[in-house]
Amino acid sequence: MSEHVYKQIKLTGSSKSGVEDAVQNAIAKASETVKNMRWFQIIDTRGHIDNGRIAHWQVTIEVGFTLEE
Amino acid sequence: MSEHVYKQIKLTGSSKSGVEDAVQNAIAKASETVKNMRWFQIIDTRGHIDNGRIAHWQVTIEVGFTLEE
Amino acid sequence: MSEHVYKQIKLTGSSKSGVEDAVQNAIAKASETVKNMRWFQIIDTRGHIDNGRIAHWQVTIEVGFTLEE
Amino acid sequence: MSEHVYKQIKLTGSSKSGVEDAVQNAIAKASETVKNMRWFQIIDTRGHIDNGRIAHWQVTIEVGFTLEE
Amino acid sequence: MSEHVYKQIKLTGSSKSGVEDAVQNAIAKASETVKNMRWFQIIDTRGHIDNGRIAHWQVTIEVGFTLEE
Amino acid sequence: MSEHVYKQIKLTGSSKSGVEDAVQNAIAKASETVKNMRWFQIIDTRGHIDNGRIAHWQVTIEVGFTLEE
Amino acid sequence: MSEHVYKQIKLTGSSKSGVEDAVQNAIAKASETVKNMRWFQIIDTRGHIDNGRIAHWQVTIEVGFTLEE
Amino acid sequence: MSEHVYKQIKLTGSSKSGVEDAVQNAIAKASETVKNMRWFQIIDTRGHIDNGRIAHWQVTIEVGFTLEE
Amino acid sequence: MSEHVYKQIKLTGSSKSGVEDAVQNAIAKASETVKNMRWFQIIDTRGHIDNGRIAHWQVTIEVGFTLEE
Amino acid sequence: MSEHVYKQIKLTGSSKSGVEDAVQNAIAKASETVKNMRWFQIIDTRGHIDNGRIAHWQVTIEVGFTLEE
Amino acid sequence: MSEHVYKQIKLTGSSKSGVEDAVQNAIAKASETVKNMRWFQIIDTRGHIDNGRIAHWQVTIEVGFTLEE
Amino acid sequence: MSEHVYKQIKLTGSSKSGVEDAVQNAIAKASETVKNMRWFQIIDTRGHIDNGRIAHWQVTIEVGFTLEE
Repeated sequence: MSEHVYKQIKLTGSSKSGVEDAVQNAIAKASETVKNMRWFQIIDTRGHIDNGRIAHWQVTIEVGFTLEE
Repeated sequence: MSEHVYKQIKLTGSSKSGVEDAVQNAIAKASETVKNMRWFQIIDTRGHIDNGRIAHWQVTIEVGFTLEE
Repeated sequence: MSEHVYKQIKLTGSSKSGVEDAVQNAIAKASETVKNMRWFQIIDTRGHIDNGRIAHWQVTIEVGFTLEE
Repeated sequence: MSEHVYKQIKLTGSSKSGVEDAVQNAIAKASETVKNMRWFQIIDTRGHIDNGRIAHWQVTIEVGFTLEE
Repeated sequence: MSEHVYKQIKLTGSSKSGVEDAVQNAIAKASETVKNMRWFQIIDTRGHIDNGRIAHWQVTIEVGFTLEE
Repeated sequence: MSEHVYKQIKLTGSSKSGVEDAVQNAIAKASETVKNMRWFQIIDTRGHIDNGRIAHWQVTIEVGFTLEE
Repeated sequence: MSEHVYKQIKLTGSSKSGVEDAVQNAIAKASETVKNMRWFQIIDTRGHIDNGRIAHWQVTIEVGFTLEE
Repeated sequence: MSEHVYKQIKLTGSSKSGVEDAVQNAIAKASETVKNMRWFQIIDTRGHIDNGRIAHWQVTIEVGFTLEE
Repeated sequence: MSEHVYKQIKLTGSSKSGVEDAVQNAIAKASETVKNMRWFQIIDTRGHIDNGRIAHWQVTIEVGFTLEE
Repeated sequence: MSEHVYKQIKLTGSSKSGVEDAVQNAIAKASETVKNMRWFQIIDTRGHIDNGRIAHWQVTIEVGFTLEE
Repeated sequence: MSEHVYKQIKLTGSSKSGVEDAVQNAIAKASETVKNMRWFQIIDTRGHIDNGRIAHWQVTIEVGFTLEE
Repeated sequence: MSEHVYKQIKLTGSSKSGVEDAVQNAIAKASETVKNMRWFQIIDTRGHIDNGRIAHWQVTIEVGFTLEE
């Protein structure tokens, strides 16, 4: 596995329920066009507030994928 | 919305259940005195340990709110 | 409590379910050999992706414990 | 001047024209309620895009002011 | 708007006149191929010097855009 | 203590004698209006120079205090 | 050259021999599809260990290239 | 050009009008004694406030110049 | 000395009197079990506040020591 | 592999020949007492100078290893 | 004072007694050749250990001084 | 050695062969005018690309030297 070359892209996913779901939403959307995604790293966790309640979470991740042979 | 001026404050909320709940607790407490909160960003996630178990989470956030017209 | 000396170690825990569980797994494993753990701080949150789904989370923490008298 | 105690607050100002104007807008708004502001530091410069053009700038600053004697 | 997934790309634009113009040049060039750009953040501001005068500015930004449905 | 919500403010204190005294001066001044201060963290340590001697120290701290029940 | 707009991408290359070779491998792979690459910057240098020996190096770089006219 | 050795110095320039002018003032002053300056990078942007208005800008830059052959 | 391998550990020491004493306390405690400590670096300086006075200082350091031959 | 818990330690290795050799020296020394080392990351690269020549390199790494079952 | 151009240099001073004295030693030595020093900022605080005691402190500062008219 | 005062300067060296050679080139050039250089630290590693190959490396270092007695 060590001789692969990876590319990393930066995505922001949203969710009303929490951090894990926002990350999964970003990865699911990206997987429609990007193949061979292998790992992610959380870069930033934010959210919007409406009337003193968290309205939705926004989590920014970097995703690494193998450049195809 | 773009011509508003926002102020940001730094809060730490606690929870026995996890990250999302600790953030919500901080926002709920602040909303008693601060109006027009719009967004938050997680700055630091810590917690206390008791007998090898997480006793509670402490999450520090920045919260932005509109300065009233 | 203020006159104690603390040591901090860096651990990475894994979980299929999410951030909180990965942290708890790291602390539980460390508690087999380390006594008097008092707090943790999340340093990095990553994960592996398999077929467009999060396969598992990997959370790196620093854990502080009291050096025994 | 050296024996003063200063407090620093974090503000975000907006402008359609550019960085300097967004900073000035934040300071002007804050000066309605905060006295004795002495300096600022730019922390973050962002903006919104509409149809391939910059719609407005959003500049976050820290502002230091003297705590009144 | 909160349920969108965003991708962020990193661009460097140049200008002889200043920071705002360099950002606008990068966005204008990118808008030829990227749709739905929503925001930018300045990451780095540099420039070249010729004979003791600023020859041109080079501003690096991150630009976020909505992944199309 | 774990279920409290804390707010953090940023202060700069000065002293002719050194770091510890500058921090104490900032906390003493803030305690005139802020109750329930619990901890501080040093963010930045600066000073002014006069004729090749340190004229005074300026230490910037963040102070956390409990939001009153 | 100063009026160009550049895009930057993030890549990770691997090598059994060392840092320079891992960077070259990433650039060589990317050059199959990306034209006009001009510069790189090392962001992170890691590696895998097998039986107390470095098995391979993994170097993450940012690569800047000119957006074609 | 690639075989040159560069030295970098750190300067702070001031201006009543804005960021670009403060950078130009620092470079113009340094060019009286430093030859072969090639590039700069903005490190910090601050300013002083007088009566709720920006009195002047202070921009800190690093400047790179070729060590003479 | 140059061919040694060093290990670094992270410690937090406390003191009622100040920064230097908190560092010395951490080193003295560690020296009961760690031999060949050579240098330290301050990572973080915090403290607790009681009734508007600094109750004690907490200084986190990294300490490097030679791995024994 | 994903359910392991890892510990990370910080080491500094030295070498007269260069970066790769200094990393290998640190790992080789640590492997005398630490089992199951899996990866490393370079944290800092320094060196000593003697008479205008590099006398030796000092590279600080973090090394991750599996906590034994 | 606002229209001056400042240059900043980086110095490391040592002392057996503590942080403040190490900074003063660096400034005193630099004042033999540099005029018009105005401010300093602490960048790094380190020290050497001998037999479980702090042997001396090493404090790195940046010092700003006015470029002479 | 502990009572010396050190000054640190920032240099960028270039090489077609790699990181170590670029550092050595910067130090060799500086040694023509700077005496008593003692250590260096790598700050940034970049390079230029020509036709999908690394054309040369550019390594930026900080170099510390003793201020002469």
